Amino acid sequence: MTLLYHTPLHAGSRMVRLVLGEYGTAGELLDEPLWQRREKFLEINPAATLPVLVEDGQIIIGAGPIGEYCDETKGALRREDRLFPGTPPERAEMRRVCDWALGKLESEVTRYVVHERVTKRQMPSDLGGGTPDSQALRAAKANIRYHLAYLSWLVGESGWMAGARLTQADLAVAGALSTLDYLGEIDWEDASILPLREWYARLKSRPSFRPLLADRIRGLPPVSHYTDLDF
Amino acid sequence: MTLLYHTPLHAGSRMVRLVLGEYGTAGELLDEPLWQRREKFLEINPAATLPVLVEDGQIIIGAGPIGEYCDETKGALRREDRLFPGTPPERAEMRRVCDWALGKLESEVTRYVVHERVTKRQMPSDLGGGTPDSQALRAAKANIRYHLAYLSWLVGESGWMAGARLTQADLAVAGALSTLDYLGEIDWEDASILPLREWYARLKSRPSFRPLLADRIRGLPPVSHYTDLDF
Repeated sequence: MTLLYHTPLHAGSRMVRLVLGEYGTAGELLDEPLWQRREKFLEINPAATLPVLVEDGQIIIGAGPIGEYCDETKGALRREDRLFPGTPPERAEMRRVCDWALGKLESEVTRYVVHERVTKRQMPSDLGGGTPDSQALRAAKANIRYHLAYLSWLVGESGWMAGARLTQADLAVAGALSTLDYLGEIDWEDASILPLREWYARLKSRPSFRPLLADRIRGLPPVSHYTDLDF
Repeated sequence: MTLLYHTPLHAGSRMVRLVLGEYGTAGELLDEPLWQRREKFLEINPAATLPVLVEDGQIIIGAGPIGEYCDETKGALRREDRLFPGTPPERAEMRRVCDWALGKLESEVTRYVVHERVTKRQMPSDLGGGTPDSQALRAAKANIRYHLAYLSWLVGESGWMAGARLTQADLAVAGALSTLDYLGEIDWEDASILPLREWYARLKSRPSFRPLLADRIRGLPPVSHYTDLDF
């Protein structure tokens, strides 16, 4: 039995859903809006962060630790389909890119966009809900271009985010970009990020991606190209 | 040849210095004040973060990835002295505590304290240097108690941060607390955190800790008990 506490547009949770999908683990998803500060959830994770994986009675907290845990418990069986590269320096590069997507991109762009455009719609006004803060959104939007340019450069050499094949770095970046894409924050027409667009089209076509493309936030449908595999 | 880009009071850098020390790797330290945005450093790490390890021609970025890299390249040789626990769930718990010290504690306390009290003294005023923002400091100080109480509870059961012996989780928390302790931000007289105090006294007595206790910031000496092993 595998349970994943998540919210649909949380980047790290999306990464873990992709990791589980790639390893063929069908998990049950539990929507856990953090702003509710549900006591039962805080007992499981006092840091009040997502995602949290519950599997075989073990509680594994955080996208990074869950990724490592899945590699350790499911990866070794899959050899060439493993989502970790083979050498320590390559694994370090994979972890650096994961940190970029779930740390730097999250704190400079994704977190603000999701908070302002999604979470604040769901929160009652006495807890801070309401209309988006346009200044926060402008700052986040100003940062997106730089991140997309960097990620496009990164994928340009080998066609993958870290090393010569699919790794958890691709799934971390795809998790984050899929959130921004749902909300229409990525200008795919920008010719300078063509390598990133081609990479994302490949990722999006993987079976592990299908459940993410089926996500719908109440009252906030995705942009029209979100589910389009040939966008 | 091992080089570590760091700053003396950066928590993640301190963790890595402890890891290297525990593995008996003597590395050269390069002080890299991030606010200078030195071009040569940004070429190495475009995220402009610390620490960065350079070893055998490999560049390893970030405390988490460096910790994993050191375990992969140096840990296997040391068997029972390894800084990683033996099973996947235990390793996940170790990584969770590392994330707590270098993520949550950093973003709620340590980063503010170091920025306001240390970095702003060193930065020119046109880049944001100057006297500490007392409001930011007050917010950070208000958060410290909760973190110390939690960490003291965590260490209470087994005497270590994760599992039944020394792991990188202890070194991550010790790295962060040693920064706060240098600056006199920890009230060790608070009887409710006695388990944490006993744990910290044990950590501080390890040979790997000595170089950290010898650190001195110009114009900002540590509190008197900082180097005292029997504080």
